[in-house]
Amino acid sequence: MKLARCELEKRVFWAKVDEHANTLSVIAGCFSEWGKALTRAITAGQPSADVLPLTGETLALSAVRLLPPVEPVNRVVVAGANYAKHLAADFGLASPSQPVAFLKAYGALIGANDELRYPPLTTKLDHEVELVVVIGDSSIDASKPIDSVLGYTVGNDVSARDLQHSGPKGIGMDLFAAKSQDKTTGVGPWIVTKDEFPTGSPVLSLQLLVDGELRQDGSTGDMTWDVGELINFVQIRSSFAAGDILFTGSPDGVGQGTGKFLNSGELVEAKIDGIGSLKNRVSAKQG
Amino acid sequence: MKLARCELEKRVFWAKVDEHANTLSVIAGCFSEWGKALTRAITAGQPSADVLPLTGETLALSAVRLLPPVEPVNRVVVAGANYAKHLAADFGLASPSQPVAFLKAYGALIGANDELRYPPLTTKLDHEVELVVVIGDSSIDASKPIDSVLGYTVGNDVSARDLQHSGPKGIGMDLFAAKSQDKTTGVGPWIVTKDEFPTGSPVLSLQLLVDGELRQDGSTGDMTWDVGELINFVQIRSSFAAGDILFTGSPDGVGQGTGKFLNSGELVEAKIDGIGSLKNRVSAKQG
Repeated sequence: MKLARCELEKRVFWAKVDEHANTLSVIAGCFSEWGKALTRAITAGQPSADVLPLTGETLALSAVRLLPPVEPVNRVVVAGANYAKHLAADFGLASPSQPVAFLKAYGALIGANDELRYPPLTTKLDHEVELVVVIGDSSIDASKPIDSVLGYTVGNDVSARDLQHSGPKGIGMDLFAAKSQDKTTGVGPWIVTKDEFPTGSPVLSLQLLVDGELRQDGSTGDMTWDVGELINFVQIRSSFAAGDILFTGSPDGVGQGTGKFLNSGELVEAKIDGIGSLKNRVSAKQG
Repeated sequence: MKLARCELEKRVFWAKVDEHANTLSVIAGCFSEWGKALTRAITAGQPSADVLPLTGETLALSAVRLLPPVEPVNRVVVAGANYAKHLAADFGLASPSQPVAFLKAYGALIGANDELRYPPLTTKLDHEVELVVVIGDSSIDASKPIDSVLGYTVGNDVSARDLQHSGPKGIGMDLFAAKSQDKTTGVGPWIVTKDEFPTGSPVLSLQLLVDGELRQDGSTGDMTWDVGELINFVQIRSSFAAGDILFTGSPDGVGQGTGKFLNSGELVEAKIDGIGSLKNRVSAKQG
């Protein structure tokens, strides 16, 4: 099942996507009203149609703007340092003994087809395609963390690399300046529920292309810590709520390693097999 | 004017506080419905009573639980490295050329009289009394940033120091693990609107006491970057919304420098002259 968050004439709502028919079935209410019941039904292998409150309204998929599939009240957690080759090739860093987690501002998010804002302070705007986990149930059992997952979506954790290294000495990377710039991080196009993949941490190929040129080409199977391990790592430090999303790190091939940063006018496509793709064009540099 | 966010029998609401009469006048609606108009009235020196939608209901101050005066949809930004003596004495770090900003999870917050949770992963739980700025208007003019401020409150940016230094090599301090632990960060007891202080960045003394023993004793006049400079620093990196709060750094005297960390059962009091105080007792260590 695919679940999109949509905007149509200033109305914001969730909808079930029929990609083949190019239609949407509108869902009543916000994530907190049905997300947990839906997650539990899917985890239990029960019919999920019963717990999803459809309004009966159907729309053309092309009629709506796809929003990031996460509500403003939820948080965006990023777990990085999760692909050894990315750390070594792009940053010259050894594999760490644990991941690093941080929070991204909600205002940094854009939808699947939105413009990607080129912020004023940076000249090294970079891409990072990532598998993004959607937490559907805040009751997380550390022995079965994936039970709490509703599904997965695609993220492009766009980063201002020069700002990432601009922080005070002794404190470390400035992940706020690098990763929370307004309207830079693509998320979407929708949530694909976990029952569409084999049980466990999904093994999916993910790519990033700039104007059609392949820049990143990896597999989530190369993650150092899998989805369950990342959920547990974050949860014991700072609890998830239902509807929160978790970025899981990016494979190698980013501009930090290759020297190829993003430029105004370029079309950046982040995609994951079995989920979908983000296509965001880089804006003129903001003044 | 003092504005508190309150809970009474599962009802959550804002109220205007009369500290002398020990009463509350209930305000209708959430911050987004009156915060901007109130901020603009105060900035313009206009009567603010007209723009605050009081319901007419009055309650005893003692009847309610004081919540953090920030709503879950808003974000908690922390600007650190802002007191040179704290950096030198407590961390052995030189004064940086700019502050460092990061996000704190909403779930880390507690109210003025709530229990302070001792999280399981740390053995070095530390205190940081801080002036907290409440942004009331998202239209921020960089030449007059304090025009966007509604008022100020008190924060205790409780930190797990061992976890702060546990992050992967080359990445730096793990501010997420250190500063976003559930139910650790006191904020409150209320917002004091800026018209109760002289114009400009407020110069106020702030203290932290543990079981009555003075541990931190500073002045916001010693901040390296004042309130307006911190707002501008954050705003150009990641925009504020009305209702967001901004921690402004802590003076010296924390456990990181003195070796005196927090222990279960201790009463931690963070206070700022002209605003109020937080009194949070440390829980038994969580399993």
